[in-house]
Amino acid sequence: MPGNIFGHSFRITTWGESHGKAVGVVIDGVPAGLELSDTDIQKELDRRRPGQSEVSTPRSESDTVEILSGVFEGMTTGCPISMLVWNRNANPGAYDYLRDIPRPGHADLFYQKKYGIRDHRGGGRSSGRETIGRVAAGAVAKKLLSHYGIEVFAHVTELGGVKAGNVTFTDIRENVEKNPVRCADLQAAERMLEQVRRARGEGDSIGGIVEIIATGVPAGIGEPVFGKLDADIAAALMSIGAVKGVEIGAGFECARMKGSQMNDAFVMEDGHPVPETNNAGGIIGGLSTGLPLICRIAVKPTPSISKVQRSVSLAGMRETDIEVRGRHDPTIPPRMVPVAESMVALVLADQMIRGGRINPESFLK
Amino acid sequence: MPGNIFGHSFRITTWGESHGKAVGVVIDGVPAGLELSDTDIQKELDRRRPGQSEVSTPRSESDTVEILSGVFEGMTTGCPISMLVWNRNANPGAYDYLRDIPRPGHADLFYQKKYGIRDHRGGGRSSGRETIGRVAAGAVAKKLLSHYGIEVFAHVTELGGVKAGNVTFTDIRENVEKNPVRCADLQAAERMLEQVRRARGEGDSIGGIVEIIATGVPAGIGEPVFGKLDADIAAALMSIGAVKGVEIGAGFECARMKGSQMNDAFVMEDGHPVPETNNAGGIIGGLSTGLPLICRIAVKPTPSISKVQRSVSLAGMRETDIEVRGRHDPTIPPRMVPVAESMVALVLADQMIRGGRINPESFLK
Amino acid sequence: MPGNIFGHSFRITTWGESHGKAVGVVIDGVPAGLELSDTDIQKELDRRRPGQSEVSTPRSESDTVEILSGVFEGMTTGCPISMLVWNRNANPGAYDYLRDIPRPGHADLFYQKKYGIRDHRGGGRSSGRETIGRVAAGAVAKKLLSHYGIEVFAHVTELGGVKAGNVTFTDIRENVEKNPVRCADLQAAERMLEQVRRARGEGDSIGGIVEIIATGVPAGIGEPVFGKLDADIAAALMSIGAVKGVEIGAGFECARMKGSQMNDAFVMEDGHPVPETNNAGGIIGGLSTGLPLICRIAVKPTPSISKVQRSVSLAGMRETDIEVRGRHDPTIPPRMVPVAESMVALVLADQMIRGGRINPESFLK
Amino acid sequence: MPGNIFGHSFRITTWGESHGKAVGVVIDGVPAGLELSDTDIQKELDRRRPGQSEVSTPRSESDTVEILSGVFEGMTTGCPISMLVWNRNANPGAYDYLRDIPRPGHADLFYQKKYGIRDHRGGGRSSGRETIGRVAAGAVAKKLLSHYGIEVFAHVTELGGVKAGNVTFTDIRENVEKNPVRCADLQAAERMLEQVRRARGEGDSIGGIVEIIATGVPAGIGEPVFGKLDADIAAALMSIGAVKGVEIGAGFECARMKGSQMNDAFVMEDGHPVPETNNAGGIIGGLSTGLPLICRIAVKPTPSISKVQRSVSLAGMRETDIEVRGRHDPTIPPRMVPVAESMVALVLADQMIRGGRINPESFLK
Repeated sequence: MPGNIFGHSFRITTWGESHGKAVGVVIDGVPAGLELSDTDIQKELDRRRPGQSEVSTPRSESDTVEILSGVFEGMTTGCPISMLVWNRNANPGAYDYLRDIPRPGHADLFYQKKYGIRDHRGGGRSSGRETIGRVAAGAVAKKLLSHYGIEVFAHVTELGGVKAGNVTFTDIRENVEKNPVRCADLQAAERMLEQVRRARGEGDSIGGIVEIIATGVPAGIGEPVFGKLDADIAAALMSIGAVKGVEIGAGFECARMKGSQMNDAFVMEDGHPVPETNNAGGIIGGLSTGLPLICRIAVKPTPSISKVQRSVSLAGMRETDIEVRGRHDPTIPPRMVPVAESMVALVLADQMIRGGRINPESFLK
Repeated sequence: MPGNIFGHSFRITTWGESHGKAVGVVIDGVPAGLELSDTDIQKELDRRRPGQSEVSTPRSESDTVEILSGVFEGMTTGCPISMLVWNRNANPGAYDYLRDIPRPGHADLFYQKKYGIRDHRGGGRSSGRETIGRVAAGAVAKKLLSHYGIEVFAHVTELGGVKAGNVTFTDIRENVEKNPVRCADLQAAERMLEQVRRARGEGDSIGGIVEIIATGVPAGIGEPVFGKLDADIAAALMSIGAVKGVEIGAGFECARMKGSQMNDAFVMEDGHPVPETNNAGGIIGGLSTGLPLICRIAVKPTPSISKVQRSVSLAGMRETDIEVRGRHDPTIPPRMVPVAESMVALVLADQMIRGGRINPESFLK
Repeated sequence: MPGNIFGHSFRITTWGESHGKAVGVVIDGVPAGLELSDTDIQKELDRRRPGQSEVSTPRSESDTVEILSGVFEGMTTGCPISMLVWNRNANPGAYDYLRDIPRPGHADLFYQKKYGIRDHRGGGRSSGRETIGRVAAGAVAKKLLSHYGIEVFAHVTELGGVKAGNVTFTDIRENVEKNPVRCADLQAAERMLEQVRRARGEGDSIGGIVEIIATGVPAGIGEPVFGKLDADIAAALMSIGAVKGVEIGAGFECARMKGSQMNDAFVMEDGHPVPETNNAGGIIGGLSTGLPLICRIAVKPTPSISKVQRSVSLAGMRETDIEVRGRHDPTIPPRMVPVAESMVALVLADQMIRGGRINPESFLK
Repeated sequence: MPGNIFGHSFRITTWGESHGKAVGVVIDGVPAGLELSDTDIQKELDRRRPGQSEVSTPRSESDTVEILSGVFEGMTTGCPISMLVWNRNANPGAYDYLRDIPRPGHADLFYQKKYGIRDHRGGGRSSGRETIGRVAAGAVAKKLLSHYGIEVFAHVTELGGVKAGNVTFTDIRENVEKNPVRCADLQAAERMLEQVRRARGEGDSIGGIVEIIATGVPAGIGEPVFGKLDADIAAALMSIGAVKGVEIGAGFECARMKGSQMNDAFVMEDGHPVPETNNAGGIIGGLSTGLPLICRIAVKPTPSISKVQRSVSLAGMRETDIEVRGRHDPTIPPRMVPVAESMVALVLADQMIRGGRINPESFLK
């Protein structure tokens, strides 16, 4: 079975290559009766759009979305929502030298090995541009979730070795769009920015960590034992290019904790039993606990660097050097913020419907 | 959509509760013509069986598998393979006090919130005993993969804060079953065992890290962009109870690396271009690179501890104390080794068939 | 992708061969809080059980069901329900001659071609005995649906060329279990029985038609455009061995009708717009109309006949004769009644959950 | 789970409404290395395009396809293929009167009941225009299958009560595009055309039967027991609007046959055992037999008729009359020929990949 469909009850199919005609997504499973306009989508696409600051690629794309189906008189109809964004600033000629030489750290060589052919222009399907479909669909998921009091947001907690200090949810909501590295600790943001500049200057790149939070998730969401909420989130986030690790709550730190430290005791709150602390990150036994969902991803440094690297010529089947010219981001985590939010929102929309918390047919009944 | 089915082309359905009649699994998608006997399954079940050492629960179960279908005259037929293990040492009465009081760190409260009812006996479906089905199916996947030169093995690399030193694949293969904590660094194993004893003495528990390796995986396995090999592995591993993090290759460490450090350069080897190093952990762009697949999971300390904890009475809707009596493991990672191997093997069997590398119908044609 | 799983939100996996150890099913997706006992299942299995009259095979099986999981203190828990029936009257030796010679009209030869191996004993997986899992799962679906006012029942409308006269739903409910051919027109039933006796006397077999009805299905069930209710029903019914045709409402007769005859006009009833007639058979545009769902299947004559037929020796790769000895039904439609009901009930349970009409988690909230 | 995705290993997602901006499809699972151009798609779309003769609606659409992704330098890449057709001759205002009054025989009322909202313009999603996506995807499936010697074709065998005489496969291939009713018996075609004219003159419509044939299908395709080839075909064909019945081979006629008549004896041919006759229609036990696959569908008369019919006003919740004005086909079967072919081709492509007969990754390896 091929792999371009994600989700079960809220299912998306993304399509498109970096330098093909367009990229897009079809969503199957949006309940009828949700007010939806291009603006809802565009504001999220604008957050992931390139060319906005010194931390992203200078490729200039307006990334204007067109909704082609599934919305009638401003409202979803329950039918599939097809959306596309035309590729306008494509510059495929700039990639001619990649036809023969796969870039280290990129999927080029492995697409070639898998399919026996590849669209080498800007990575083709494996380009970060593929995430446009994810973000467009994520915008719909976020809007849907907002009707149920669920909010998903993310921030950069570490970049190039600089760690952010502790921040509150309010800090994140207020600060994250105020600086190009999307760090809610504004002082750390400055130091992160320094790291980006230094890496760029060296023709190198840096990695980091993004934390994603979802508030308002009701208890009991998730489908044991393989469709657990954390399993779905892990798949969703790991499916984003450049992500090499996913953790929930205390995450890898739990390996050094004792049960008596890790366990979140139960207390009564407003007449309901709830966990008092949130080492679990909002998920236990694959089910949401009612506390905020907290997860983090490790994002590797951008593989496209202008430093000389060793690679091979596929035509000659011999070793050669490569300098990856052209437009690329010196670091990925800041632009990954809306993408990671989208993936978590897609999982939550899917799981809310699967669990019967959102009516799959309609708001209007 | 409910969640008890895993995989696409090699699909398993697990069923059963800790203190119900039996636990089991049905596998749909094993090609015909594979020699298979109870022994192939039993040897893996014996590795996860409780009561084998001081690091595991004293619950005594022989965990004897019965193959009920899909095998004819010692060979798979292409039809579903149903396997079960009867629960013999069930002692449900021992859990009566849990009917009212959910255990911190366990799924009890959240099953109750989701389903409005729960089988409280030993955690019911959320018990580690559910992994019997996974391991039985994993044994079939491993045997299938072995015909294609793929081997999956795992070891404990950290336990209670004790980290293992560097070990070779040979060390792992040779040492891991020699000590009860399944650590390939035998000196570290001693210190880990000390930690287990200390925790047990304190009525507490400890967490750790398990590393899973798969060798022999050909390049190009994985289905972009949502069925990527790492996405499937992340879901598979995160779906195991107590796992709070998954990382591939350099994992979270990549957040502190530069592109020039992280990227694996390509070199020619035996006339084929391959990565020279393996920071990627055998997966780039969601596709296998041909190098060993390397991933790690963070395993939280066993939530069942005999120390007094705070919880709530569901009947009284008031706070109360709980001491989790009865049989439980002081640490989970050693017993998780065969489970984690199984999940990776299941993903690989699935992806090998999906990618056309294993014929889905039969070996015999 | 293999094929032994059916459904999406109410999913079943069947397993087992005619002369293996057992046959069974796992259901994933039964909401918690449904009262369920062996008796609920057994009464349906008893309806499909062989050896009950002169129209069925004399193979004697008690077909006693065991529920192994997913039910706790008489109530479903939301966890998978595993059920099995042991094969007791298996007589595999009786089938030795089939090892070499495939039976015309049976799947023997084609399983051999597909899988390169087959369990030749009584057809193995392709035996009618496989339907035990379907009927056991169907019993759960029926019980679930009954809570929503949906009832599924079926009757034989034609057998060996004898057509039943018009009957009311009441006739069907009252008469269908009163005669071995399960025909609600008791006079036609007599003539059908004559046809069965004649065919049996000739060592031959006869085909027929079964009509399945579901009352109480609310309007709007079905998932356009590929998960339409009629598409799912067609797949469900065509997946039963020996079924060669499926029709809904006017069915094939619609080919000879005009639009003005076929269209069901809308009228107001109790303040709601509804179709006045039911040529559509309760489904338009893939959605239920609120009127009774009516469908029919064409069932071929039992392929196992004792008359001499021409076949081939697989060992010798030459033509030879075959007489299918042993126990078999002279006609299938009467025993197919509970099977066909089950498949329609499974589709309806699935679609009711998919459409949000049944809460997927629990009755108890 | 919503329903706009079809297939497993060759999966399509269709989207779009009759009078929205566009209609389209995304195919996930086309192996890399297939030569593909707009022309391959366009020639099939041209066969289903309206406005071509007196038997179809006068709506004039060029239905020009655009391939947006998944094809690079004339060859498929293994990535999703997105295709769309802009709606140009949309005339939504013509449908204003349908906002309030659902058309008998159409899905209007039931979309309203399901979703609480509907795009009333020309039936919205339930329009026959939705089949453009099916035919575009079917064109790719056909091209893929042609590389394996599989050909799918269809013809009208009955229309308005006129039955075609026996025709050979050659007759069908040669004659079907020679007359507007797509009947291979040219004399019957004349009489069918008379029936169409008469119905049109009366403001009425007529139904008919379409037979679909696939030659070259190898033996053993299909996935027991729920993914049987006939089950998938039944679902595929029944999912087309206006289809009320599906039969395979002898179909409903088998109800009147004896086992000794129905069974296809086995003979040796070119050293292989094969069925001598084809009452089975190329499928036994859900597996292809190697003989031509033959199936038929019953197509109801077009529900849009200009005769006065009774319906209801949804605003007023009272009964009223309706005359369905505007452009519509007086009969559907002729235009359904390419659609039905497409659905069968989609199933075969899917099952060929599922069975390992087509490499899912690439032709090029």
